[in-house]
Amino acid sequence: MTDTMTVTFEQIEQAAARIADYVHCTPILGSELIDRAAGCEIRFKCENLQKAGAFKARGAHNAVLSLSPGQRRGGVATHSSGNHGAALALAASRMGISANIVMPDNAPAVKVDAVRAYGGQITFCEATQAAREEALRVLCDRTGARFIPPYDHPDVIAGQGTAALEIAAQLRAPPDVLVTPVGGGGLLAGCAIAGRALMPDTQIMGAEPAGADDARRSLRSGVWQPQLAPDTVADGLRTSLGELNFAIIRREVDDILCAEDAAIIEAMRLVWTRMKLVIEPSAAVGLAAVLAQPARFAGKRVVIVLSGGNVDLDRLPW
Amino acid sequence: MTDTMTVTFEQIEQAAARIADYVHCTPILGSELIDRAAGCEIRFKCENLQKAGAFKARGAHNAVLSLSPGQRRGGVATHSSGNHGAALALAASRMGISANIVMPDNAPAVKVDAVRAYGGQITFCEATQAAREEALRVLCDRTGARFIPPYDHPDVIAGQGTAALEIAAQLRAPPDVLVTPVGGGGLLAGCAIAGRALMPDTQIMGAEPAGADDARRSLRSGVWQPQLAPDTVADGLRTSLGELNFAIIRREVDDILCAEDAAIIEAMRLVWTRMKLVIEPSAAVGLAAVLAQPARFAGKRVVIVLSGGNVDLDRLPW
Repeated sequence: MTDTMTVTFEQIEQAAARIADYVHCTPILGSELIDRAAGCEIRFKCENLQKAGAFKARGAHNAVLSLSPGQRRGGVATHSSGNHGAALALAASRMGISANIVMPDNAPAVKVDAVRAYGGQITFCEATQAAREEALRVLCDRTGARFIPPYDHPDVIAGQGTAALEIAAQLRAPPDVLVTPVGGGGLLAGCAIAGRALMPDTQIMGAEPAGADDARRSLRSGVWQPQLAPDTVADGLRTSLGELNFAIIRREVDDILCAEDAAIIEAMRLVWTRMKLVIEPSAAVGLAAVLAQPARFAGKRVVIVLSGGNVDLDRLPW
Repeated sequence: MTDTMTVTFEQIEQAAARIADYVHCTPILGSELIDRAAGCEIRFKCENLQKAGAFKARGAHNAVLSLSPGQRRGGVATHSSGNHGAALALAASRMGISANIVMPDNAPAVKVDAVRAYGGQITFCEATQAAREEALRVLCDRTGARFIPPYDHPDVIAGQGTAALEIAAQLRAPPDVLVTPVGGGGLLAGCAIAGRALMPDTQIMGAEPAGADDARRSLRSGVWQPQLAPDTVADGLRTSLGELNFAIIRREVDDILCAEDAAIIEAMRLVWTRMKLVIEPSAAVGLAAVLAQPARFAGKRVVIVLSGGNVDLDRLPW
């Protein structure tokens, strides 16, 4: 696993070659009815159709595959209430190593089930950052497992950036705008690096809930700001922006868009209804933000990353 | 529009060329977790991602595009409680002609909305076959619209068969079994003709709800049997098998599988959860039927057509 704190385009290309046999090249789909509603041409990169139902499979596989045999020996571990845990469990099971996932005891049943379905070992803890970190420390000490962070690490960022490599290869021409959700920032940072290299005229934008707008505040102030007391239905985007990701995003990203929860839910439902795709609230924030600014995006060609589809079908937000 | 009562492989090839610019070549997707649960390798042909959310776009476009300018002049019409109405409205709007859709006054709101979204004119009638046919007759007399039947017509069957053309082209090797839902039988009949021509060693099977098993009864008895009093959650499969389709299915199809409603709902939920695809109950019947007979399909390579994704998100069956 790379430990230097930089991510280059070459690392993303290497990641793509490394993970090619393990993840899907996900389709890009569109809807005329959504285009008509938006007043622009939107293409959706369907990472909800990715292995384990989210783009997180890219970074997790790249990180695990980058470990030396010695580093892999004790297995891998992480703390996650969401998709990174399931993705890491899947990546580990395919390498024949163990994955220990620390999950808060209020984690949604659907995410707990996903980790188990991929063979992950779960350790529950209290739902605080301190409890998660302490449980992970104890677990790594006991098992010798290697910590694979959910977003703020070069191998994870390089893996997530492979989504933008695919976008550049799949489209006939680069879009005017590329929008990805931003929570911890791994996806946005990786895609920004790949996007700058391959689609230099494309504007790269993040999108986040108005109730967890730390990336926007950080980018606008120029100073990293943690996300205290997030309040949003988009459970994958409540986390603070990673500091390494902030450095990359500050350099490479054109803007951070915001969307209210009501608009996120409406956009989620629009994708379910018109695209026939199950996406989670976090995946809908890009569309919600674009629909909220029709004048800004009028006539443009926009690619939006649908980041994941792991949602509890018994607790839909409508 | 062709009026002779045969469908040849050549007609399906011509249909594919005719509709190529108007419909999607839908992706084929799989899930390791579903394969593990099923004990066989299943690939899903995602017609829920088709234009207007169902395979019906294929037949509707082929039928409308096959009309001469004179035949098109008065527009087109049909009676439909479901996906054929929306598909026909879409096809007509793209040709710049009108579409009149007779719908029963108990049609689901989501299907009514879809017809309207594609610009169709709706005439409501009582929810009986006699009322639908009478309303359609009056409407065609008044407007000069041409009736495009939902399934029992060569141009419609040839259009639906293009799904199997794509399957043969998309897969590296033909599957052991191809399963499509069977209601009116247009999809199954068209896919059987294309499948026999391109994948002669592939078994072609229909799947239908146990509560609307007229295709199975007809095939087993050798005598066409209407579906009286259907009782199933799969609203797209309640109709009787078309007589032309019965003649084709009797000749070309290896078996008709059945699934109970509880299994259909479970399979639908499995596809939503694991594949992140919104499918309607009718689209889940193939998977439900395959999962119900693990010994029969063990180790086989099975392609299942997910026929559509038009479902009311406020009235999910779980």
